[in-house]
Amino acid sequence: MTSRLVVIGGDAAGMSAASQARKRRPASDLEIVAFERGQHVSYSACGIPYLVAGDVTDPDALVARHPAEFLKLDIDVRLSSEVVAIDLDRRSVVFRSAAGSGASARESVLGFDQLVIATGGVPTRPDVPGSLSVGIHGVQTLEDGIRLLGYLDRHQPRRAVVVGGGYIGLEMAEAMLRHGLDVTLVDAAEQPMRTLDPDMGGLIADALRAEGVTLRLGERLEGFASTAGRVTAVHTSGGEIPADLVILGLGSRPNSDLARAAGIAVGETGGVRTDRRMRTADEGVWAAGDCVETLHLVSLRPVAIALGTHANKQGRAAGINIGGGYATFPGVVGTAVSKLCGTEVARTGLSTAEAAAAGFAAYSVTTESTTRAGYYPGARKIKTKIIAERTTGRLLGAQIVGEEGAAKRIDALAVALWHGMTVEEMTSLDLSYAPPFAPVWDPVLIAARKAAEALGSFS
Amino acid sequence: MTSRLVVIGGDAAGMSAASQARKRRPASDLEIVAFERGQHVSYSACGIPYLVAGDVTDPDALVARHPAEFLKLDIDVRLSSEVVAIDLDRRSVVFRSAAGSGASARESVLGFDQLVIATGGVPTRPDVPGSLSVGIHGVQTLEDGIRLLGYLDRHQPRRAVVVGGGYIGLEMAEAMLRHGLDVTLVDAAEQPMRTLDPDMGGLIADALRAEGVTLRLGERLEGFASTAGRVTAVHTSGGEIPADLVILGLGSRPNSDLARAAGIAVGETGGVRTDRRMRTADEGVWAAGDCVETLHLVSLRPVAIALGTHANKQGRAAGINIGGGYATFPGVVGTAVSKLCGTEVARTGLSTAEAAAAGFAAYSVTTESTTRAGYYPGARKIKTKIIAERTTGRLLGAQIVGEEGAAKRIDALAVALWHGMTVEEMTSLDLSYAPPFAPVWDPVLIAARKAAEALGSFS
Repeated sequence: MTSRLVVIGGDAAGMSAASQARKRRPASDLEIVAFERGQHVSYSACGIPYLVAGDVTDPDALVARHPAEFLKLDIDVRLSSEVVAIDLDRRSVVFRSAAGSGASARESVLGFDQLVIATGGVPTRPDVPGSLSVGIHGVQTLEDGIRLLGYLDRHQPRRAVVVGGGYIGLEMAEAMLRHGLDVTLVDAAEQPMRTLDPDMGGLIADALRAEGVTLRLGERLEGFASTAGRVTAVHTSGGEIPADLVILGLGSRPNSDLARAAGIAVGETGGVRTDRRMRTADEGVWAAGDCVETLHLVSLRPVAIALGTHANKQGRAAGINIGGGYATFPGVVGTAVSKLCGTEVARTGLSTAEAAAAGFAAYSVTTESTTRAGYYPGARKIKTKIIAERTTGRLLGAQIVGEEGAAKRIDALAVALWHGMTVEEMTSLDLSYAPPFAPVWDPVLIAARKAAEALGSFS
Repeated sequence: MTSRLVVIGGDAAGMSAASQARKRRPASDLEIVAFERGQHVSYSACGIPYLVAGDVTDPDALVARHPAEFLKLDIDVRLSSEVVAIDLDRRSVVFRSAAGSGASARESVLGFDQLVIATGGVPTRPDVPGSLSVGIHGVQTLEDGIRLLGYLDRHQPRRAVVVGGGYIGLEMAEAMLRHGLDVTLVDAAEQPMRTLDPDMGGLIADALRAEGVTLRLGERLEGFASTAGRVTAVHTSGGEIPADLVILGLGSRPNSDLARAAGIAVGETGGVRTDRRMRTADEGVWAAGDCVETLHLVSLRPVAIALGTHANKQGRAAGINIGGGYATFPGVVGTAVSKLCGTEVARTGLSTAEAAAAGFAAYSVTTESTTRAGYYPGARKIKTKIIAERTTGRLLGAQIVGEEGAAKRIDALAVALWHGMTVEEMTSLDLSYAPPFAPVWDPVLIAARKAAEALGSFS
């Protein structure tokens, strides 16, 4: 008998799960229905800042696969269809499909044998006066990006305020610079990029200033002023900042409300709990993507990290398992990368503060080097920080800030971290060397050497 | 009482050893004398092709440290001084210092307590008629590079033949193109870059042809024709190739003759045998750099790989140990990287042929991807090949050929290889992702996925 897989959420995690399940089970064996409340499925949310910046000119370029392609695979994608409840007893979902007119919407019920919850994240909206004014934009969905481009085009704003100095904030600050706007970045912390140590975050602050961004650090957002419903200024604990356009880059939390309401276990991070096969505690119910929490393999604590690469891997694992195979997502080490104009930034593992919070006694070293042999044309600056455990020298985290060719070096560190290498062991790593690609001691090895020397392991 | 360390060979390995020993033991405790038969110490031999190409305009830029800097550290560097014998019984070396006139040279004896053999490599000179003709150049030493530049300048050659299609051959072919010469590359094998599988080597052949290099593959070198002592043609099994300039890029063998003559153990590769602390079997005698053999951590066989990064690490380990510390060089996984104009190439681990020779039953997969998200400007092609063990899926090797941003990805694979990861485990690796840096599945992960799927581990 044919059974039915229902997928809630049609982006990376949900559609990866659907595709992988379909690969292993034909339509005669498994019916697949995917509900997506928006207008697009399977697109790169991480690409939105580059769409807004103009690096990508066609929103369609961000779409990995269109609904028609899924239909060809016998995956029934339902756009503008929002699941509003999960009924575990009846093994069904209640969903609402937008009718022709936005106002009225039908509610219907569909049973499932297997369920994938891939509801994504909820962007943090500040609970301050005026936050619903026109001209305040989020950048979570492709619709958000298209809407922002339309706003830029129609209103020709002059002054943009970006609220939040994390990855999205950085990328959106660059996008606004590219549109020729005056850009102010507001963050409640004393540094942008709070996932970095303060010294490394300070380098990003310097880079932002050098690109002409006004920084308002250590300022709490208090509200928005508006005229005729349109934003005119941002109020912070430091004063008023005139604004024709505000971009919210405050991150997101796991969208686990639906799961929680259904009685599915949600962890301390607010993300749905799963095992390494992406199973929730409820038989036949899976979860993947920004709505779940996962294990941080260094702190060994649950974390909720919204990132397309995790969503894809988790969705794929869920789909393979639903398809009768075996695949796992063991966790993350906290790798991330971004850039601001010519400045690249990357991190993996725990920051110094995170290491302390996780109970590690840690120390750190920072080294400066070049991306190529110093004498080779195009050698660029790279600063590498390593955080390691006192007494053992075990690598706990690493951060890189530098110019072109710097950031991707974080991958070698991420793999070393995955294996719990000590900095001393790392000094022997057989990393690639030729003058156009690295100094004879790669910046990663130089950092490991200095960390090993600081530990005194060789003295 | 002061003891004496004698270092034979003043390049990367020897001078790293000297510096590290000095760091830990002052001159009052350890006298250090380093003999170098050439005119320069501590330079980047790997930089010579880029000096010849014109990327580096001053030979001095390749010199990491000058003799005067070592003198300041109380390291007595003796240039133009060649050690001609090691006497283990008397614990002394016999050396010859060039006198003012090249012809006569004094022979002297100097005792040692500790000895570092860092005699480097002997470039392979083909044993064919005419190989001593003027216009046939090696590119092993800085002197070689300077001499070649002088030849180019004085003789304005039009046709260059590069003999040998390995890393140096590739780099010198590019250097000659940059000088505007007609370039022919000769190799006895049917592909350039024999350390790659034939299909990946074929991509390099394509790239060479696209850059205008004439390839003469599968042709054995038979001799050189000359007029008035100057080379005019190269004879191969395939015919005659007119040449105004010949560059030999045939690799090198460990320069272990001095060690062997002294009765110090030399392995089957021709390299001096050491343990992981770089000790030879003889008490107080160390060896490091291109003259030693080391353990290949995948094949578990001894290999002799001439590479500056290994030489530096080995010399450093020897010096730390001589200084009373503890440091090791556990071996290599065979990582290498190079480029030909815009084409980057990298490899690590075993090739398919090497895996078979080492007794592995291996399979391989090749994947095509891009260096950035496909929609992001500047996304370039990258082809990634993975070689893995049948039945276990253990990674055995990897090869990359691609455009800008491709090759350095080999490092993540090299670290994975170092830890004996399976391709299935690798699919979970937390590699950095953002559209300017990678597709949502990094090319490394795509290759791992395909390799895992080929193994059938998920079906």
